[in-house]
Amino acid sequence: MSDMTKEDVTAMILSAKKTAGMTWEGIAEKIGMSPVWTHSAAMGMNAFPPKQAALMVSTIGLPQEAESVLSESPTKIWEQAVPTDPCIYRFYEIVGVYGPTLKALIQEKFGDGIMSAIDFDMSVTRVENPKGDRVKVEMSGKYLGYNSW
Amino acid sequence: MSDMTKEDVTAMILSAKKTAGMTWEGIAEKIGMSPVWTHSAAMGMNAFPPKQAALMVSTIGLPQEAESVLSESPTKIWEQAVPTDPCIYRFYEIVGVYGPTLKALIQEKFGDGIMSAIDFDMSVTRVENPKGDRVKVEMSGKYLGYNSW
Amino acid sequence: MSDMTKEDVTAMILSAKKTAGMTWEGIAEKIGMSPVWTHSAAMGMNAFPPKQAALMVSTIGLPQEAESVLSESPTKIWEQAVPTDPCIYRFYEIVGVYGPTLKALIQEKFGDGIMSAIDFDMSVTRVENPKGDRVKVEMSGKYLGYNSW
Amino acid sequence: MSDMTKEDVTAMILSAKKTAGMTWEGIAEKIGMSPVWTHSAAMGMNAFPPKQAALMVSTIGLPQEAESVLSESPTKIWEQAVPTDPCIYRFYEIVGVYGPTLKALIQEKFGDGIMSAIDFDMSVTRVENPKGDRVKVEMSGKYLGYNSW
Amino acid sequence: MSDMTKEDVTAMILSAKKTAGMTWEGIAEKIGMSPVWTHSAAMGMNAFPPKQAALMVSTIGLPQEAESVLSESPTKIWEQAVPTDPCIYRFYEIVGVYGPTLKALIQEKFGDGIMSAIDFDMSVTRVENPKGDRVKVEMSGKYLGYNSW
Amino acid sequence: MSDMTKEDVTAMILSAKKTAGMTWEGIAEKIGMSPVWTHSAAMGMNAFPPKQAALMVSTIGLPQEAESVLSESPTKIWEQAVPTDPCIYRFYEIVGVYGPTLKALIQEKFGDGIMSAIDFDMSVTRVENPKGDRVKVEMSGKYLGYNSW
Amino acid sequence: MSDMTKEDVTAMILSAKKTAGMTWEGIAEKIGMSPVWTHSAAMGMNAFPPKQAALMVSTIGLPQEAESVLSESPTKIWEQAVPTDPCIYRFYEIVGVYGPTLKALIQEKFGDGIMSAIDFDMSVTRVENPKGDRVKVEMSGKYLGYNSW
Amino acid sequence: MSDMTKEDVTAMILSAKKTAGMTWEGIAEKIGMSPVWTHSAAMGMNAFPPKQAALMVSTIGLPQEAESVLSESPTKIWEQAVPTDPCIYRFYEIVGVYGPTLKALIQEKFGDGIMSAIDFDMSVTRVENPKGDRVKVEMSGKYLGYNSW
Amino acid sequence: MSDMTKEDVTAMILSAKKTAGMTWEGIAEKIGMSPVWTHSAAMGMNAFPPKQAALMVSTIGLPQEAESVLSESPTKIWEQAVPTDPCIYRFYEIVGVYGPTLKALIQEKFGDGIMSAIDFDMSVTRVENPKGDRVKVEMSGKYLGYNSW
Amino acid sequence: MSDMTKEDVTAMILSAKKTAGMTWEGIAEKIGMSPVWTHSAAMGMNAFPPKQAALMVSTIGLPQEAESVLSESPTKIWEQAVPTDPCIYRFYEIVGVYGPTLKALIQEKFGDGIMSAIDFDMSVTRVENPKGDRVKVEMSGKYLGYNSW
Repeated sequence: MSDMTKEDVTAMILSAKKTAGMTWEGIAEKIGMSPVWTHSAAMGMNAFPPKQAALMVSTIGLPQEAESVLSESPTKIWEQAVPTDPCIYRFYEIVGVYGPTLKALIQEKFGDGIMSAIDFDMSVTRVENPKGDRVKVEMSGKYLGYNSW
Repeated sequence: MSDMTKEDVTAMILSAKKTAGMTWEGIAEKIGMSPVWTHSAAMGMNAFPPKQAALMVSTIGLPQEAESVLSESPTKIWEQAVPTDPCIYRFYEIVGVYGPTLKALIQEKFGDGIMSAIDFDMSVTRVENPKGDRVKVEMSGKYLGYNSW
Repeated sequence: MSDMTKEDVTAMILSAKKTAGMTWEGIAEKIGMSPVWTHSAAMGMNAFPPKQAALMVSTIGLPQEAESVLSESPTKIWEQAVPTDPCIYRFYEIVGVYGPTLKALIQEKFGDGIMSAIDFDMSVTRVENPKGDRVKVEMSGKYLGYNSW
Repeated sequence: MSDMTKEDVTAMILSAKKTAGMTWEGIAEKIGMSPVWTHSAAMGMNAFPPKQAALMVSTIGLPQEAESVLSESPTKIWEQAVPTDPCIYRFYEIVGVYGPTLKALIQEKFGDGIMSAIDFDMSVTRVENPKGDRVKVEMSGKYLGYNSW
Repeated sequence: MSDMTKEDVTAMILSAKKTAGMTWEGIAEKIGMSPVWTHSAAMGMNAFPPKQAALMVSTIGLPQEAESVLSESPTKIWEQAVPTDPCIYRFYEIVGVYGPTLKALIQEKFGDGIMSAIDFDMSVTRVENPKGDRVKVEMSGKYLGYNSW
Repeated sequence: MSDMTKEDVTAMILSAKKTAGMTWEGIAEKIGMSPVWTHSAAMGMNAFPPKQAALMVSTIGLPQEAESVLSESPTKIWEQAVPTDPCIYRFYEIVGVYGPTLKALIQEKFGDGIMSAIDFDMSVTRVENPKGDRVKVEMSGKYLGYNSW
Repeated sequence: MSDMTKEDVTAMILSAKKTAGMTWEGIAEKIGMSPVWTHSAAMGMNAFPPKQAALMVSTIGLPQEAESVLSESPTKIWEQAVPTDPCIYRFYEIVGVYGPTLKALIQEKFGDGIMSAIDFDMSVTRVENPKGDRVKVEMSGKYLGYNSW
Repeated sequence: MSDMTKEDVTAMILSAKKTAGMTWEGIAEKIGMSPVWTHSAAMGMNAFPPKQAALMVSTIGLPQEAESVLSESPTKIWEQAVPTDPCIYRFYEIVGVYGPTLKALIQEKFGDGIMSAIDFDMSVTRVENPKGDRVKVEMSGKYLGYNSW
Repeated sequence: MSDMTKEDVTAMILSAKKTAGMTWEGIAEKIGMSPVWTHSAAMGMNAFPPKQAALMVSTIGLPQEAESVLSESPTKIWEQAVPTDPCIYRFYEIVGVYGPTLKALIQEKFGDGIMSAIDFDMSVTRVENPKGDRVKVEMSGKYLGYNSW
Repeated sequence: MSDMTKEDVTAMILSAKKTAGMTWEGIAEKIGMSPVWTHSAAMGMNAFPPKQAALMVSTIGLPQEAESVLSESPTKIWEQAVPTDPCIYRFYEIVGVYGPTLKALIQEKFGDGIMSAIDFDMSVTRVENPKGDRVKVEMSGKYLGYNSW
């Protein structure tokens, strides 16, 4: 039962990253992916394609066995239906307050459907601002229209 | 007890909008605000500044009493801790899957803090794409660093 | 505030269907759609395309105002996170027992991704069987692979 | 207290399957059962009949003690009333949106009753499609009519 | 929207029963069914077969329209996942305390399967006892063995 | 902290029972109690009277220390407010559907009160039936009338 | 559907009590019962025996129809699993903190069993105390020992 | 990290009490406190004053380090919002059924306020009764009136 | 059943306050109480002492019947265990993050006990600050030490 | 996987603090921060700035590796949506009872917005009082007005 798990590999990555003083942006650049996707896959919330898994192993210095673990499809689980960490909660709050608005505008611009959370990408950037710098989050997902049959 | 409530005014707006064949984008343009904010305030989730309240009354053709109601501070309530509508759920899912990633990257770029959901703005746009058009959601909020004292 | 709602139209449909002794299969045939989709749209869980909305109004004998209501995009809400009705609960139980299996086989056959519940169709048929007839439910949805970026 | 549990055997199967590069479809063929049932029983959600338990032990290379464990009746437990993994959630969503429709059509075709989730079978297949391949899920269960007494 | 609902008919039955001083046992006898089933169907939790619906209308003195309502398939909903009424809670407690025992003995006597709650009947009787009379509840349901396929 | 717990003794019983190929019915007969009570007490949900504890130790072959553990009063805990195992869920469903009926008939036959779940007994039997054998569950509890004071 | 309900009668009692400036203690004395039981029955949480129902109608000045309503067996429902009112919450807190203690001492003094909440009585009294008067709550219930069979 | 915790000390007390055949009443007498308070403090739900901590160590025969642990302020946590053990549930039920009554009588006798659960004491006694002995629970807490300012 | 309720009076106060352009601070001054308490009592979360009830009726211009309603003890109920409104949520978050800290410091300064939420007062003030004005909330409650007995 | 975690460091601090007989006030003074912030950061709910991390290591006598751990950004998690410890619950209760009041007064004094829980500070002091000393909690946070865009 001593097989390496995604949790094990995540712990190794966090430990090596701290020791080496790397950043997520730096790791992302080395494996040729975006920082959002790289962090999420390193946390075990996305699967590394073979090439990126290999790069990850060499970049971070992981044992060889980790490579196949990084490529496994994860089961995405979060424990808190309502997250308590203030940084994450604010995004939950935005969904609560603006969810119906996002739906209404997607319908107005596209028709009856949704933005995919699977065929999806996201970025986080820092925008300088004299009144205080701003966090900019951009997400885009393919529009999927409801089927009628 | 016959005072007009925010719910009453929201219903009037939806009814008038349907009759007049207006769009949220069109209404937003008339009152000089963005579509996201305009829809959200019309739903009673944000308060109209006086000038916009007056423009809303004239644009939509609401009774005069609605003007002060539109300017009242709302109590923001959502009933479903986990939203069921698929279009809104996908955003909840994104917070579940990518919440820890958003937190990690905000910390890497700014330090220990959060993106404000109060000093905040958001837009929804349609991006043409040969493989299927995409919904683009951009949000920005002021970075707030934790105080130590 | 006397606008007709999707709930109103659903009640009219149920009442007219009972009076006229129609079946869902019969209604579906008249509007040229499948029984599953027709029932679901009549319940206000899907939007009728314009042509089907018009056919529905004439088939069932609804007031003209209902036509546009049938075409509106619904907000899909269900109250019970765990359904209590035995007929619906059994499907919930199947998701609980076989959910990880469905996930494992989709990954084995397609890769890391999901079956869309939006680009989706479903049917229910009766299969004769000497040991007792069987309910056959067939669903199909487009495979969506996770994006990496 | 060192008795082997169903969880232990599931872990052994997953480990051996990975090492041997087997697929669920391949294992299923070897033991003469369907892939859905085989995976589910391997996960400890169904009990292996004696013959299949013996075949499983020889096919996968499990210790002899595992044979009787595979044949034990499982207690079926799932932790998340609402599953978070997107692939599993989509099936939950289908039950939420289409549950009342499944019930209505079962009643129309059979009378007042349910589809059994016990006398039940299911398959998952890949259907090629130029617009994107589709996941097809077929389930069938015995119709059980409510008793009146 | 003035169609008669199952709730309306339940209220009529309760009112008429009180006025006429009838008992559930008496009503059950008149329609030729058991008291448990009769009460449950009168509460809208089971559907009356046509003959019993007609007998119910004549026995209780209900309007003719009630007959078809009594025959409709009900949607079985209970609001409290854990019932608070002490009389009902005790049965919930029995399921909590003895649920695993019922499961173990059904498996010992029948194999891997369940007792059907659909092909099911139940009775309540008073058993005289010098230390205090006892409530006897007898339930029986068809054994359903899990399918393997 | 190495004291033997009820969980330890339950595990010993299950292990010894499996090795010896005993049944619950067989064990129950040896200690002179019913199978339902015996299983439930072996699971740690009821306390063994001294004589039965001694018989249990000799019948199963438990260490002497287990005797006093078997006699301790248990704290009855179940983790799942709504049980997921299909065999146990069906009993939960029966309480949901027929709870108000059980209450109404107890009141009709006894007055305002409850069936005790403490001064209580239960049996499970197999009833042969050409259409499929049936599980029969009989429970009886002392009627307790509400006090008024 | 205009039958008088227990809720109606509770409202009548509260209104008449306020108008007449009565106290619960006063009403209790008039009907010859304790204040705790009287209030609880007036709230619809206990059933009035015929004599007390008649006295209640004459004491409070209720319409004659109320008499039979007061005698009906109530269904005891509380909406909040954890009560929010501070006065009620403190009793919930006492159960949380001292529940295991109550259980341990009942077992030490009586054996394995419970205090009945059905064959039960309670009083509330004011105890003068120079450091601040105290609320004294006394409850007593019949000891019920677990049956073994 | 090997510091002794309140849980450790509770386990030592339970083990020593069993070995020595002591009762809670006996231990309470030895340390000069009531049985309710003694049990609750031994469970880690109350803090021992220095003198009682020392007496507890000598009475039970605990290691010296336990003395300071017994005096630490506990964090009072209970896992089950609704307790499942029947003995504890009955007290929860009493709060559910009689909570509003306790509130009404406290207000009638004292004014708008609560019974303190902090400046609080409780006892459990056995009251002989020819119809079956009764559990008597007496609790008293300081009345605290709401402040207005 | 037409008695005036606390909800009715709250609605009257809000309506009259809006018409008259009063502030909570202004109303509080007129009745000689603090703004926090005044608002809370006007919302029906605290009871007005007779003098303040009379002043409230004359200040706001309420019907005479409202005076006694204002003096009634309220039942304090809040629907959302976790509040969604961002302004109220932030206070909930503070309790989540700093709750254990408040407890630790109260113990360090006072001993084992709590801050009363009954013998309690609170104020909200605006503090000017060149980096942005600050909300200052001051609360004070009587220290209550746990009783040992 | 043997990296030191925030939980490890919290345990070391608590152990060293106990051994050395330090107080939170004393530790806070040594590192030049307030007691509230110091305790909260020591519990792992806030991040130490580098200088304070170094002071903490020398003041408490922690291993050098702890310094960087103290500076890491924490993920703020609390398990109990409704806290059970009476001392913490009272603050939750205050948010429940006075939350809408805090919101109303913040709006009256500042406009539509919130008090920040991020740019935030808090203190706890003991106020002597002849009727019993009082706990004074002062919190202040930057006012953040809702953006409209």
